[in-house]
Amino acid sequence: MSRSDGRANDQLREIKLSPGFIDSADGSVFIEWGKTRVVCTASIEEKVPPFLMNTGMGWVSAEYGMLPASTDKRKQRDGRRGGQVDGRTVEIQRIIGRVLRGVVKQKALGPRTIWIDCDVIQADGGTRTASVTGAWVALYLAIKKLRDRGQLKKDPLISGVAGVSVGIVDGEPRLDLSYEEDSRAEADFNFFMTHEGDVIEVQGSAEKHPVKRDLFLACHDLAEVGIKRLMSIQNQVLIGTL
Amino acid sequence: MSRSDGRANDQLREIKLSPGFIDSADGSVFIEWGKTRVVCTASIEEKVPPFLMNTGMGWVSAEYGMLPASTDKRKQRDGRRGGQVDGRTVEIQRIIGRVLRGVVKQKALGPRTIWIDCDVIQADGGTRTASVTGAWVALYLAIKKLRDRGQLKKDPLISGVAGVSVGIVDGEPRLDLSYEEDSRAEADFNFFMTHEGDVIEVQGSAEKHPVKRDLFLACHDLAEVGIKRLMSIQNQVLIGTL
Amino acid sequence: MSRSDGRANDQLREIKLSPGFIDSADGSVFIEWGKTRVVCTASIEEKVPPFLMNTGMGWVSAEYGMLPASTDKRKQRDGRRGGQVDGRTVEIQRIIGRVLRGVVKQKALGPRTIWIDCDVIQADGGTRTASVTGAWVALYLAIKKLRDRGQLKKDPLISGVAGVSVGIVDGEPRLDLSYEEDSRAEADFNFFMTHEGDVIEVQGSAEKHPVKRDLFLACHDLAEVGIKRLMSIQNQVLIGTL
Amino acid sequence: MSRSDGRANDQLREIKLSPGFIDSADGSVFIEWGKTRVVCTASIEEKVPPFLMNTGMGWVSAEYGMLPASTDKRKQRDGRRGGQVDGRTVEIQRIIGRVLRGVVKQKALGPRTIWIDCDVIQADGGTRTASVTGAWVALYLAIKKLRDRGQLKKDPLISGVAGVSVGIVDGEPRLDLSYEEDSRAEADFNFFMTHEGDVIEVQGSAEKHPVKRDLFLACHDLAEVGIKRLMSIQNQVLIGTL
Amino acid sequence: MSRSDGRANDQLREIKLSPGFIDSADGSVFIEWGKTRVVCTASIEEKVPPFLMNTGMGWVSAEYGMLPASTDKRKQRDGRRGGQVDGRTVEIQRIIGRVLRGVVKQKALGPRTIWIDCDVIQADGGTRTASVTGAWVALYLAIKKLRDRGQLKKDPLISGVAGVSVGIVDGEPRLDLSYEEDSRAEADFNFFMTHEGDVIEVQGSAEKHPVKRDLFLACHDLAEVGIKRLMSIQNQVLIGTL
Amino acid sequence: MSRSDGRANDQLREIKLSPGFIDSADGSVFIEWGKTRVVCTASIEEKVPPFLMNTGMGWVSAEYGMLPASTDKRKQRDGRRGGQVDGRTVEIQRIIGRVLRGVVKQKALGPRTIWIDCDVIQADGGTRTASVTGAWVALYLAIKKLRDRGQLKKDPLISGVAGVSVGIVDGEPRLDLSYEEDSRAEADFNFFMTHEGDVIEVQGSAEKHPVKRDLFLACHDLAEVGIKRLMSIQNQVLIGTL
Repeated sequence: MSRSDGRANDQLREIKLSPGFIDSADGSVFIEWGKTRVVCTASIEEKVPPFLMNTGMGWVSAEYGMLPASTDKRKQRDGRRGGQVDGRTVEIQRIIGRVLRGVVKQKALGPRTIWIDCDVIQADGGTRTASVTGAWVALYLAIKKLRDRGQLKKDPLISGVAGVSVGIVDGEPRLDLSYEEDSRAEADFNFFMTHEGDVIEVQGSAEKHPVKRDLFLACHDLAEVGIKRLMSIQNQVLIGTL
Repeated sequence: MSRSDGRANDQLREIKLSPGFIDSADGSVFIEWGKTRVVCTASIEEKVPPFLMNTGMGWVSAEYGMLPASTDKRKQRDGRRGGQVDGRTVEIQRIIGRVLRGVVKQKALGPRTIWIDCDVIQADGGTRTASVTGAWVALYLAIKKLRDRGQLKKDPLISGVAGVSVGIVDGEPRLDLSYEEDSRAEADFNFFMTHEGDVIEVQGSAEKHPVKRDLFLACHDLAEVGIKRLMSIQNQVLIGTL
Repeated sequence: MSRSDGRANDQLREIKLSPGFIDSADGSVFIEWGKTRVVCTASIEEKVPPFLMNTGMGWVSAEYGMLPASTDKRKQRDGRRGGQVDGRTVEIQRIIGRVLRGVVKQKALGPRTIWIDCDVIQADGGTRTASVTGAWVALYLAIKKLRDRGQLKKDPLISGVAGVSVGIVDGEPRLDLSYEEDSRAEADFNFFMTHEGDVIEVQGSAEKHPVKRDLFLACHDLAEVGIKRLMSIQNQVLIGTL
Repeated sequence: MSRSDGRANDQLREIKLSPGFIDSADGSVFIEWGKTRVVCTASIEEKVPPFLMNTGMGWVSAEYGMLPASTDKRKQRDGRRGGQVDGRTVEIQRIIGRVLRGVVKQKALGPRTIWIDCDVIQADGGTRTASVTGAWVALYLAIKKLRDRGQLKKDPLISGVAGVSVGIVDGEPRLDLSYEEDSRAEADFNFFMTHEGDVIEVQGSAEKHPVKRDLFLACHDLAEVGIKRLMSIQNQVLIGTL
Repeated sequence: MSRSDGRANDQLREIKLSPGFIDSADGSVFIEWGKTRVVCTASIEEKVPPFLMNTGMGWVSAEYGMLPASTDKRKQRDGRRGGQVDGRTVEIQRIIGRVLRGVVKQKALGPRTIWIDCDVIQADGGTRTASVTGAWVALYLAIKKLRDRGQLKKDPLISGVAGVSVGIVDGEPRLDLSYEEDSRAEADFNFFMTHEGDVIEVQGSAEKHPVKRDLFLACHDLAEVGIKRLMSIQNQVLIGTL
Repeated sequence: MSRSDGRANDQLREIKLSPGFIDSADGSVFIEWGKTRVVCTASIEEKVPPFLMNTGMGWVSAEYGMLPASTDKRKQRDGRRGGQVDGRTVEIQRIIGRVLRGVVKQKALGPRTIWIDCDVIQADGGTRTASVTGAWVALYLAIKKLRDRGQLKKDPLISGVAGVSVGIVDGEPRLDLSYEEDSRAEADFNFFMTHEGDVIEVQGSAEKHPVKRDLFLACHDLAEVGIKRLMSIQNQVLIGTL
């Protein structure tokens, strides 16, 4: 019951982060995670949404998209041809936004919005966890820019954060499913945790088979292993930008 | 640090289910859960979405909505005035659909769609968990109708399912948050489990404060307590419909 | 040529109004009119539409909707799946708004909007007349709330108002058609009148057969009978709320 | 209390119909009614809407629009800039469609749709009644084309139809209001009647002042006067096309 | 290889301009160009788009539309039935706006917008060039109105402008294609030039056959012939309005 | 009057094409043109649009998009937040589609659609010409794939095609404007030509200053210089893929 790409059950795919990928963004990273590739950017806007007006607090808002040719069968662009944005897109971008806000002090950020954009160039499973993992680096770089310009009094970042999926395939938990594994998984959970290993968001479901409590806990354990590894990759890249 | 409504931390609000609330639906229930009230219906359509054409398999699709006056500040209707459907609405209806599909064998259901509609008449926190809990009863009744008419060879229902939220308020886990508690919670997790206590979906986040592993596990424990109680309420109501 | 439910031609179906049905609304009523059931709410907003800015005048705006399972064949939600709002919905909500504005003095209401929402839980003909009849009670209760809080100098309500349909079936006029009667009616007119019996709005058409002048007048007569009865029901309910 | 343009209370404005205004339409007329001017066209499509498939019956569908510069203050185009179609537009085009269907036998028309388009080039009150009055002529010409080609076995036209407004200004009923009169009218009713004087649709409201029964009947009387005159204008034009 | 309507290759169709066609517009012209007929209006709004706020500069914005029955096969209205505006419509109205802005000094116009609306009543090829040619006259008349009211210090009009198409049919360049010629043309270029013969916009393509440089230059030459003739027609009409 | 980046007036920016950039596409190239960077993909779909049904002919359809952070000021995503697709987007994608269809024999392509997607990762002027130049390479690779699989009897490609802009800055024509040059250009023309130097599409305008005939011809000359250079770059890259 080994994995099709020969990985151990607790092993991530190969991951590479290229910071500064987009000159026009305030922070950016190109994350290549196996065959999944996502452009993550952070753009600073000196404005807040209506519900934060006059509170002195800032906001982090996220949008997610997929290039039409990022999947084997061409995916129609969201919002073209008069339609609604795809429900999966909405759900994912809400997760990205919530997770990043979970590690940002709105008061310390001040009355500005950081827009996070995650655009999937190529999709092979795990695009939401790759998006969060890359987006945090882009967010870090944008906040660094604010700090370097003297626009921040306190550091708004509470912690680092990353995301990883754990699926149950053939009855056993596996870290970081590829698309091929995901499509035959019994259940698939996404864990988003801080660099300290605390939970920011858990989102996952067992559309094929209800999951026993112990198996779910085993997934949680595997996720912690993955997050630790991701933290080390994120930190290494950020050290390189100093 | 007691709760504003005097409940114990592991205590649900009062819950009442009125099955057969809507004559025109194939299955229906009106769920009153504290001050949260939701009309849940199940409508059978002898048709499947394009991606299931000619597979013999069925589908469960869910839509969620809130009456404008269901919240203290009137909420604009989704999709009126040319806009997109609210992201929260999209996210919730995707959860409802996934959770119910998690306890339905698509093959046994046959080439038909069961449409689940959850319309919130009044909202006081926990509308997504009330929706799932009520919707499962509506789904059960619709499937019973199919069975009674001899339209099913096998039972498509794998198990019962219910949902409950557990939040962390003042550092301690509490079962089934009301709106007032939810708005000052540090984290809020929604657990959807079968009548056997197995996990179908977990979805929650810690926008205010990352959550230690042990605290998250304590939430899981509380959820199991709640689900057991919900199962008993669901079963009692269904026995009454025989 | 008697009616399928045994009613006389000038007889309404059984009608029940439950005021205060929704805690979160400023005024609300649940109207059950035969098998037609509508939740009517009134929500006060201290704001006016752009064209009334700085005039001191108020506004009454209405929205109408049907729950998907309120009809035998599930009805798609307005505005989901990227579409326009259903034309019938638009037409009905415009009628509700006009009729209620017809009994409200905008100057006396002051610079605020009262939002009327009529959501059909179950439909068996006459939803637009049930909506107006119920909505007026909700409007009354919201205005009473303003009055009780001392926010009004003068009473903005000119009169009570109710609506009733009269159809022509098998060549004879009949009060208050059910869905079954409506679908085989030659013509169907909706009359909205004040408690004094004056006309606020007439809207109806003879898609199946042009209607002779005398027959149209006979419809008008029947409508007056119905409105008197509705007035008495409305007043009785409001007395109960004192 | 005479009218601003010197007309008697039972007098129509000057009306001119130019049939065959648009070469590319199957039937067309340019109606100039005082300063109100509308292009009315009828287009035959050998197809029916889904709900008439395989019934052998035909349909008449209407769309209404206003050129942006047709009113003194430029009116935004419907459906541009991502918005919904204006509610008034929807209401008017539904009336046009219903009224014309009221004089067409669907069975005799056969499995085809006649699309009616009414585009207001200049608006000075009464655009919906001008639209119906002109559209009937366009419809007649399109049906004549079908008949001339031998595509019809029976005549689908039951009767002629026209529309006229009657308003109450300064307490007295007046036929055919201009925009200036309409904007200060206490009530405004639109009557759509066959050439025999039978009612097809009545639609009107008293947003400013409830209307006594007798006054409403007087409006009905005035409308009959107007319809007779319109019938004669319509017939004269059609004779000219023979 | 003569043209189906007997014209010489450098000959325009018959063109007639009726200024002041719409009373409610600030400037208007009805242009009849062969069988192509377009209502062109200019409406002054004392407001500018956001990006020109506080610059003192004005704007010219254009919208284009086709009546559904303006083509042989009925064309669906833009933006109805929840869809996007037709791409061709968008492209044409952008051209009209750019071309007119190309002959207007934004500073001299002052902080106001002139809305240009071109609505095609009947289409037989060349609607975009007819639109620009007519719209410039409407624009001229609206600016004259501003000048006559003393609302302009300097003349914002740099020059006159007109548009004409040149197509390549059977290998030879032809001025001003009708629909029938256009549909079998190898290439079709639209030239928009000032009364001095200078280029404001060129837009055209060779979907059927790439075009040699010399042939493209010959098209340019023919366009100059056409523009001169159009200038004379435009001027003659404007002299008539003095 | 030298250029800010030191280029000669007839000199292109540095251009690099990386074919095969996206594994999931049938043909793809990443084009880096100065600081402008575009992902171009071609996806084969064995289906044609309705108007080509049963003709045996194929189609090439193009969509264009910009990543939000591709410009200095974040650009809102098309079609999100309920809006229309940006007019500029529509115009550009129509050009890309027309130009590529101009070098494809629809009959030889057979009953299939090739979807071209051009997504701008970073924008510094000339995105439409970079898109066409890159998209042709992606199209070539997708057609090669069809040919290699034996799915084509004849070669559908008529020729190579590329696009380049020529602007007029300080009165003189300059090849391939960067964003900074473009924003102060008097006029800007885009030429799309075959590898033989024949014209496929010309599209450009002089919003700031009408352009004399000779200057326009000089632009045409410069474009020919640019296209020759682009052809050589395209060919070199394709040779590399053999």
